[in-house]
Amino acid sequence: MCDQLRWDALSCSGASTIETPNIDRLASRGVRYDRAFVQGAVCGSSRMSYYTGRYVQTHGARWNNIPLQVNQYTLGDHVWDLGVRPVLIGKTHMVADQNGMLRLGLEPNTPEWIFASECGFEPEERDDGLHPDGPERNDLAYNVFLREQGYEGDNPWHTAANSVLDGDGEWTSGWLLRSAPYPSIVPDELSETAYMTNRAIDYIKKAGDERWCIHLSYIKPHWPYVAPAPYHRLYSEADVPPPNRSDDELVDPHPILDAFQKSRIGRAFSRDEARNLVYPTYLGMVRQIDDHLGRLFAELDSLGRLDDTMIVLCSDHGDYLGDHWMGEKDWINEEIVRTPMIVVDPRPAADATRGTSSSELVEAIDLVPTFIDALGGDSSGAPSQWLEGESLQSSLHGEGSTKRTGVVCEADFGFLEMANRLPAADDLRSRRATMLRGDRYKYVLTEIGPNLMFDLEEDPQELTDRIDDPALAGVRADMHEELFDWFRLRRHDATTTAGHLTRMGAPGHTANRGIMIGYWDEEEMAAGKAGNLY
Amino acid sequence: MCDQLRWDALSCSGASTIETPNIDRLASRGVRYDRAFVQGAVCGSSRMSYYTGRYVQTHGARWNNIPLQVNQYTLGDHVWDLGVRPVLIGKTHMVADQNGMLRLGLEPNTPEWIFASECGFEPEERDDGLHPDGPERNDLAYNVFLREQGYEGDNPWHTAANSVLDGDGEWTSGWLLRSAPYPSIVPDELSETAYMTNRAIDYIKKAGDERWCIHLSYIKPHWPYVAPAPYHRLYSEADVPPPNRSDDELVDPHPILDAFQKSRIGRAFSRDEARNLVYPTYLGMVRQIDDHLGRLFAELDSLGRLDDTMIVLCSDHGDYLGDHWMGEKDWINEEIVRTPMIVVDPRPAADATRGTSSSELVEAIDLVPTFIDALGGDSSGAPSQWLEGESLQSSLHGEGSTKRTGVVCEADFGFLEMANRLPAADDLRSRRATMLRGDRYKYVLTEIGPNLMFDLEEDPQELTDRIDDPALAGVRADMHEELFDWFRLRRHDATTTAGHLTRMGAPGHTANRGIMIGYWDEEEMAAGKAGNLY
Repeated sequence: MCDQLRWDALSCSGASTIETPNIDRLASRGVRYDRAFVQGAVCGSSRMSYYTGRYVQTHGARWNNIPLQVNQYTLGDHVWDLGVRPVLIGKTHMVADQNGMLRLGLEPNTPEWIFASECGFEPEERDDGLHPDGPERNDLAYNVFLREQGYEGDNPWHTAANSVLDGDGEWTSGWLLRSAPYPSIVPDELSETAYMTNRAIDYIKKAGDERWCIHLSYIKPHWPYVAPAPYHRLYSEADVPPPNRSDDELVDPHPILDAFQKSRIGRAFSRDEARNLVYPTYLGMVRQIDDHLGRLFAELDSLGRLDDTMIVLCSDHGDYLGDHWMGEKDWINEEIVRTPMIVVDPRPAADATRGTSSSELVEAIDLVPTFIDALGGDSSGAPSQWLEGESLQSSLHGEGSTKRTGVVCEADFGFLEMANRLPAADDLRSRRATMLRGDRYKYVLTEIGPNLMFDLEEDPQELTDRIDDPALAGVRADMHEELFDWFRLRRHDATTTAGHLTRMGAPGHTANRGIMIGYWDEEEMAAGKAGNLY
Repeated sequence: MCDQLRWDALSCSGASTIETPNIDRLASRGVRYDRAFVQGAVCGSSRMSYYTGRYVQTHGARWNNIPLQVNQYTLGDHVWDLGVRPVLIGKTHMVADQNGMLRLGLEPNTPEWIFASECGFEPEERDDGLHPDGPERNDLAYNVFLREQGYEGDNPWHTAANSVLDGDGEWTSGWLLRSAPYPSIVPDELSETAYMTNRAIDYIKKAGDERWCIHLSYIKPHWPYVAPAPYHRLYSEADVPPPNRSDDELVDPHPILDAFQKSRIGRAFSRDEARNLVYPTYLGMVRQIDDHLGRLFAELDSLGRLDDTMIVLCSDHGDYLGDHWMGEKDWINEEIVRTPMIVVDPRPAADATRGTSSSELVEAIDLVPTFIDALGGDSSGAPSQWLEGESLQSSLHGEGSTKRTGVVCEADFGFLEMANRLPAADDLRSRRATMLRGDRYKYVLTEIGPNLMFDLEEDPQELTDRIDDPALAGVRADMHEELFDWFRLRRHDATTTAGHLTRMGAPGHTANRGIMIGYWDEEEMAAGKAGNLY
């Protein structure tokens, strides 16, 4: 998993100014899902959907740093059940529900505490790579490693790997956009991307024949927008695609868009100067990941593991990078919610689809059931009542496509500083939106101001809001109702199994359990117990 | 709390053929909420709403015997936090989420295990009083007590307290409807209702000045429909109200109603013979509870506890008893979802409302926040993010009514044998309905067949479904939309506090935590940290 990787930043997906040969080769061995969507528009909520196989509305961790409730089943639970070790190397952005854990008497730092704190992963190395400050960073393995390499200080992750010497030779934090064109102080081979790749390779070598599910989770191409040499200058202004935006978008915008556009981040990325500095570095970071994935794949090949390893390339969301006059993420345009998804199933049954692309509508939450099936489990049996996605196995094996007719992504923006620019809300929790994207239309239900609608066939760039178009009234009403259906049947009732539902209603079952209501006399009761009177 | 007590079975609520003097006196000391509604149409789901202060959609335990997910905060959590012991005497119907507990490493029978198994209550005596069979019943305290009184056998709860000698002097199970006119073998003073009342009195005496919140939870007037003498013959056929039903209801009914009507239970209670036998016994059980509550209130009085004890009388749902050609519960008519609710607040601030009745729309989930406020807590502060009800304190103190304009109740019928009479469903979980009841109209969203609508002003008996009435199209659309709003803002995100939401979005907060995105240079970053650039 990459962080903040746009679906269109790979050459196999049509990017014309960047080459990603190793990812492209991966795609040639599997299926490239060209319409794959995440369920949350920001790291935390999106990742909790990847890790639980549940929509944001269902798992409840709606933004970054919202604890994942302690009862939620995770990818870790599912693969542990199949005798497979779920290994974490890198970022999850998971925040543990410590209140929930303490309430149940869990003791800090016991195995159960760690299990419930890490989405069920066994952290070989956890590094969310976000906070430059704070004493807790000092002991991070990557910081220890950098100090061993001679980079001094409490937090060389920030001061060396994510900082630069600017044009005047002055140390400058990589968090500043003006740092983008300079190389990071740490060279490529010591960079975080290289380091995490090495950790994965080390683990795979060490694991031998043990079965594992490794979540190799790169922080890049997420900000800070800094790349080591030579990636800082592989791309230039000439490689920056034209921004996807129109002046019309600035005229009387929706209050939410108005807040995004006027925010510091929107204003920064709307400046060509910033965009033209940052975008090439972003592409450089993507190319850097591609190169290191090449190393990883070569190692897997030499270990003979390519033949029995399912590999998935994905991302938690994209990056506006100035499109729609916005920066960052947190909203529902294709730049954010549509993400790369390449799935390589090594089994012969998948040979029929190798190297193909698919336009099925797939979701991040489809991966957990796909993994369960690939590991020999049954994604339709218990505990699948926790899952809301659809296994891709049939699709991968050329046995039919998924049934989904629309994908859902949720965006919460109440935690952002831009929320100060929004109209007042009675309920702070209402500063959120739900997107339903079908084959052709995208409908966005906002809790603030009017809803939004786009016709992706006539307007794939999403430049024209059609919410008031009378010609779309019927589609709009249908999508509104479809979204209502979706909300009603979320799997909040995950302690109910399908077997329970079927068993309870069987004629005679209740009477035979001793609950004998509505029988007049002994004769009726006997008929009821025999299943003949219901 | 009574079980299966209809709102209209009390003399203070207008019942003309039964006297409930002690409950009436209770009402004269507090507020009688005449439009109080439960959130689930069956014991389990309704009770989990009472015990969590959350709607069924939110807590997820949608029917009987569905485990309450281990993360759910309960009344027990809230009152323990306020230094008050939550004591259980009687029924909860709570099923523990043992999978969830074991997954987190909880050890059976530790205090944490018990806490998570009993809705946070400390069980002074737990007795769900449902299953006549099974070795686990042998050790129940009430069975031990009955054996001490000379009632032999593994389960005298069933064979003596809930059985009769019929007209031929033959032992007959009280589960059979034909047993209703005979007295239970066990006399009143040894009955379950008397026993549980005694247990409450004993606890209150023992507790002294300790603060407690006792859930005295009677199984009656729930079936088995058997009362001890003299209650088995206090009422007769002449005291049975006319059934609330019409022949029109049987003509081309909604598929769900068709299944209910044709079910064994619907057929049984549609027979006048059955109704006229059972209803008087039902009234007798209510009167029996009233008498024992009189004893309890007298004890409280003599202990000086009436002056500092909040008392609430409520029920988990009603009983059709032949109305609408149905028996039992599980559906959304007023007979089921409207329940008694009398709240006595002993504080002088409540003197203004003493002895009044209120037509505010209130819900079972309002009680947890009401208790928090009454016990000196703040129902609007953390952990109120777990709560979905509205404290009744202002209403009780005459300081304004609740804000609610509609109440919601959910009905799941997929676990019933009658579900075998329903049309096939793709998703077994869709065999459910959601009711929104406003001041005048009731709208029922079903997942099977058409929706339903009643005008309670013109048709308080709910005999005419107006779903297709063009005159109500506007109201219907509004209620549909209101229900959609309701689904969207359920508190599935209970690990998010209001404080978190406010704090995260404060200008400069993110930058000061070290996340510094969208700043061009040092100058902008300083402005951002100062909260001046957002």
